[in-house]
Amino acid sequence: MPILVMKFGGTSVATLDRIRRVAKRVGVEVAKGYDVIVIVSAMSGETNKLVGYVNETSELFDAREYDAIVSSGENVTAGLMALTLQEMDVPARSWQGWQVPVKTTNAHASARIEEIPPANILQKFEEGMKVAVVAGFQGISSEGRITTLGRGGSDTTAVAFAAAFEAERCDIYTDVDGVYTTDPRICEKARKLDKIAFEEMLELASLGAKVLQTRSVELAMRYKVKLRVLSSFEEQSDEAGTLVCDEEDIMESNVVAGVAYSRDEAKMTLVSVADRPGIAAAIFGPLAEAGINVDMIIQNISEDGRTDMTFSCPTDQVARAEKAIEGIKASGELNFSGVDIDQSVAKISIVGIGMRSHAGVASKMFKVLSNEGINIKVITTSEIKVSVLIERKYMELAVQSLHDAFELEKA
Amino acid sequence: MPILVMKFGGTSVATLDRIRRVAKRVGVEVAKGYDVIVIVSAMSGETNKLVGYVNETSELFDAREYDAIVSSGENVTAGLMALTLQEMDVPARSWQGWQVPVKTTNAHASARIEEIPPANILQKFEEGMKVAVVAGFQGISSEGRITTLGRGGSDTTAVAFAAAFEAERCDIYTDVDGVYTTDPRICEKARKLDKIAFEEMLELASLGAKVLQTRSVELAMRYKVKLRVLSSFEEQSDEAGTLVCDEEDIMESNVVAGVAYSRDEAKMTLVSVADRPGIAAAIFGPLAEAGINVDMIIQNISEDGRTDMTFSCPTDQVARAEKAIEGIKASGELNFSGVDIDQSVAKISIVGIGMRSHAGVASKMFKVLSNEGINIKVITTSEIKVSVLIERKYMELAVQSLHDAFELEKA
Repeated sequence: MPILVMKFGGTSVATLDRIRRVAKRVGVEVAKGYDVIVIVSAMSGETNKLVGYVNETSELFDAREYDAIVSSGENVTAGLMALTLQEMDVPARSWQGWQVPVKTTNAHASARIEEIPPANILQKFEEGMKVAVVAGFQGISSEGRITTLGRGGSDTTAVAFAAAFEAERCDIYTDVDGVYTTDPRICEKARKLDKIAFEEMLELASLGAKVLQTRSVELAMRYKVKLRVLSSFEEQSDEAGTLVCDEEDIMESNVVAGVAYSRDEAKMTLVSVADRPGIAAAIFGPLAEAGINVDMIIQNISEDGRTDMTFSCPTDQVARAEKAIEGIKASGELNFSGVDIDQSVAKISIVGIGMRSHAGVASKMFKVLSNEGINIKVITTSEIKVSVLIERKYMELAVQSLHDAFELEKA
Repeated sequence: MPILVMKFGGTSVATLDRIRRVAKRVGVEVAKGYDVIVIVSAMSGETNKLVGYVNETSELFDAREYDAIVSSGENVTAGLMALTLQEMDVPARSWQGWQVPVKTTNAHASARIEEIPPANILQKFEEGMKVAVVAGFQGISSEGRITTLGRGGSDTTAVAFAAAFEAERCDIYTDVDGVYTTDPRICEKARKLDKIAFEEMLELASLGAKVLQTRSVELAMRYKVKLRVLSSFEEQSDEAGTLVCDEEDIMESNVVAGVAYSRDEAKMTLVSVADRPGIAAAIFGPLAEAGINVDMIIQNISEDGRTDMTFSCPTDQVARAEKAIEGIKASGELNFSGVDIDQSVAKISIVGIGMRSHAGVASKMFKVLSNEGINIKVITTSEIKVSVLIERKYMELAVQSLHDAFELEKA
């Protein structure tokens, strides 16, 4: 039997009625002849409630206990989904992470899946079980303790199962009906994409389009898992949603696939740093140790042996970043005159694999923004992406202008 | 280090504040030099919520999924308790049933503990852990699936750990401050007992005094675990609560230790049954198969080869019992003229190991009830117990009169 992986997020299983609704969707795939692995999240609100308990109990909590506590929401959904399927005469059973087992690293609260031995579940499929309902987001460490994969980790669970079981496809059911050229709440011309390349999705996911956890896309790309994003709240055909796939599977596409944004960015500049080999390591080593997600990095031209070093990070990490920088200064490792912090910037990015073969995409972007009177503060580029930092108040305008200029509303 | 087992029920861990409160109690025992095994229930209300989900999802649910779902409440409390102890600088970690492992039978939803290998937890004690917080009520079957022990099962978990680890004592913290001579809500003269024998507690527990799960008392008796029942809502000394122990440990005691009652009893009589060998088996076999908890059984004197067969069971099982009896009649196995059902009876029992050596206790009980004009419908006796069925409206009166007559208010 071909195997299909179907993943349902928290809003898709928020009530017993919704569980029944998505169970019917699973039944449709079983009727088509698939053996199905269903990955479920906790009923929406449950994980937040449990995280709240942990935070209220302990400020610097033991991540091993955090994992043991917050993983329980998925176990409840998995059992309820199995019962619901059984009620519909679909042979099903639930699996908790340790039962599969989903073997992970020991990095509690942000563990990575290392191996999913398929033997146990395959044997049950052979014995006539049609659906394995697996609690997402969790696994077991080499020490036999429960681990979790970080928020949104159930997407990664789903892709990892699809890879381990060589599934025909991995369908991610969520509360949106696919991946859009940009956020429809900001730009009403946003258009749903039928297909998007892994590389593009990866850039969009990491740029703040929160449809899929970044790690799940990386994993899908590495193991060539066909990933489909679709809504659990609508009747679905086989062509619904957005297929995330290899770029060879996309016949014709726009040069730019989408415009992404990230609202809560901050720009920090170390002013007049004494320029010598190793200064980047001296700055970004301690920042990494402090858990700062440094995104863009710009080093200005050196004058008189001194340079400015600029980087961006999420606004809620600014305080921690400042503390780390004070530490660097105090250590005497680095000499600089001061730190400029701008907390009112946003990041806008255009993404598309077509950029590889089309020149002039970046300059067109800059021209569009310039025509709107938007000043660019920082630029970074990759093979398939151009990102800029701009003043946050221009964010919506920038997204809309770029969407128009690259004609993303047209297929 | 001597080992102490402490068990906290659902109301004792109902909120984060209460968890902090009982964690302090655990800290006091650690300070005395104990290695402590804490057994926790789910936060009160949680298990009922999960059972509600199951019942709403499926009428004839798969007990394996039921167990996977309802066991999650205890996992949350265990993690939170471990975090709370860590906050108080007490080295602690949580254990789920399968991690210990608590090995049980495969009888899902009412599994029995078969073995608790102490090696894993003992090793952690040796490494410096002071408290092992164990999720109560749950275990793992030989098939690697999660099992539960039935409602109130955390008491049994606690006693089983005390036996497996040869604990000095097993303290059951609950919302009452001990075992009483009778229910204080019914009889204001009820007195807390300092000590009670296992056999007496067993009779009281099975007779409806819901302080301890019956099975936990059986287990404590078999393994000679010193069991103490005390309140988690009061400051406690070493002598607080009630000690449930071997009768040799009780120097002097009243002939009657307590008066128990069970409100929701029904009396069913099969009228004019053709009397022949095997009729009891023909009746009670099918009733047992239907899951009816038959309690008292009375067979009247046979006349003309026919007899009346009377038994009692909980009122909420009457409908099922009737159906089973119809089945017996339809099968032609048994001939009887009809079924009388009396759903307005209650059971009153006096319990005491002193009865073994004192004659006239039963007749004194009958005289007391007779003096109050209370008619006795059914009588059964054991070595240390006399039980009667009476009209439910006389229940409180009967309890109070017996408490007075046997002077239970006096130590």
